[in-house]
Amino acid sequence: MHVLIVHAHPEPQSFNAALTAAAVAAIEAAGHTAEVSDLFAEGFDPVAGRHDFTTCADPERFHYQREQEHAARHGGFSAEIVREQERVRRADLLVLQFPLWWGSPPAILKGWCERVLAYGFAYVDGRRFDTGLFKGRRAVFSVTTGGTPERFSPEGVYGPIGTVLYPVERLFLQYMGYEVMEPFVAYAAPRVTPEDRAAYLAAWQARLVEALASAPAAPPLEDALASVGAAAWARSG
Amino acid sequence: MHVLIVHAHPEPQSFNAALTAAAVAAIEAAGHTAEVSDLFAEGFDPVAGRHDFTTCADPERFHYQREQEHAARHGGFSAEIVREQERVRRADLLVLQFPLWWGSPPAILKGWCERVLAYGFAYVDGRRFDTGLFKGRRAVFSVTTGGTPERFSPEGVYGPIGTVLYPVERLFLQYMGYEVMEPFVAYAAPRVTPEDRAAYLAAWQARLVEALASAPAAPPLEDALASVGAAAWARSG
Repeated sequence: MHVLIVHAHPEPQSFNAALTAAAVAAIEAAGHTAEVSDLFAEGFDPVAGRHDFTTCADPERFHYQREQEHAARHGGFSAEIVREQERVRRADLLVLQFPLWWGSPPAILKGWCERVLAYGFAYVDGRRFDTGLFKGRRAVFSVTTGGTPERFSPEGVYGPIGTVLYPVERLFLQYMGYEVMEPFVAYAAPRVTPEDRAAYLAAWQARLVEALASAPAAPPLEDALASVGAAAWARSG
Repeated sequence: MHVLIVHAHPEPQSFNAALTAAAVAAIEAAGHTAEVSDLFAEGFDPVAGRHDFTTCADPERFHYQREQEHAARHGGFSAEIVREQERVRRADLLVLQFPLWWGSPPAILKGWCERVLAYGFAYVDGRRFDTGLFKGRRAVFSVTTGGTPERFSPEGVYGPIGTVLYPVERLFLQYMGYEVMEPFVAYAAPRVTPEDRAAYLAAWQARLVEALASAPAAPPLEDALASVGAAAWARSG
């Protein structure tokens, strides 16, 4: 099995970095392979724009999905985006590793989603959720929080963690067709004891190894545009 | 009353741009003032990092909140961030104008939140939600969606719009103490008729003018750090 970890933390000494390093070690020890998109270290630019493309569908008015569809049709994504799309394409399991900032992933990861998982590559009209192009693949996110489990409980001030993560789970991963595993949440990561942090690392490794032992190999990714015909974006919603 | 509109769409001819232009016109016609943070046009960089600061608390390890606290204490925010913080500070009403991309605001707006609404400026430990520093101010978001209202209903494939927007409402605006008005949602904006779009623009203008007629003037913003004492971030969560 092959795993892509999209890692979104700026500090190499962070607990997020420790989680990713532990994940890679466990994956490889179990006989699988892993690669990491280290967004901050690689200087990933999260701002959508014409620099996403070597092609241009409409020089007068920038319609992002239209440009994405045009680029998908004509091989017009920039080198950075092609590199990330290839990483996504070859992964049997997709892992998103991030700290919860203001209740959602850091901007750099949101921008990765917007730019890399383009219309015509990752989704098209009529091929979402149960018929999504990534059906048959699994994904999981591993999140660190500043808040305690109590704050993310139904009575907690932040609300249930499932509600907080709903947009990421439903409108990002499930949208593409991924089977989304239960998230791994390291609560209050900056404030627990070293022993607790070691336990988090071990638990995350065990979760991944178990998931890989039972996960299906990714089916080949279909040509999104070929599956629905032309100009489908115009009807999308 | 003074309004800040944080506008996050890359295309000047977009419906989001029309909504912002209509908002400014209505605000000014009602005798108030408005300014716009046009994030794409101004080239706002949404990536958190050391470029946020002219000061440095720890050159060895980048801890974002610690650097924010240090900068707040020593006047060490970069010019771009100071400019945006001043815009936020002088606004009686904060408006966020954005298209819903993958179920949440575009990365450029998320990064604006992460970088501008820094620890020590926008929140500190012990001053969040009901005791938030922006208590007494109102905020509203104006969102365009590709999906229809049915898709965002409780039975819809995307789930209820309130659930989708929960992290932004609760863990961003309410977190700071804002009174959050009901969001203005222009559903299926790319696919409705010109008459429907005109109706959206008029409804948005009416909402704003009504809100401004009843909104309280913003109380002066407290010095966040002075309100809680030093090193509060270490206990935060």
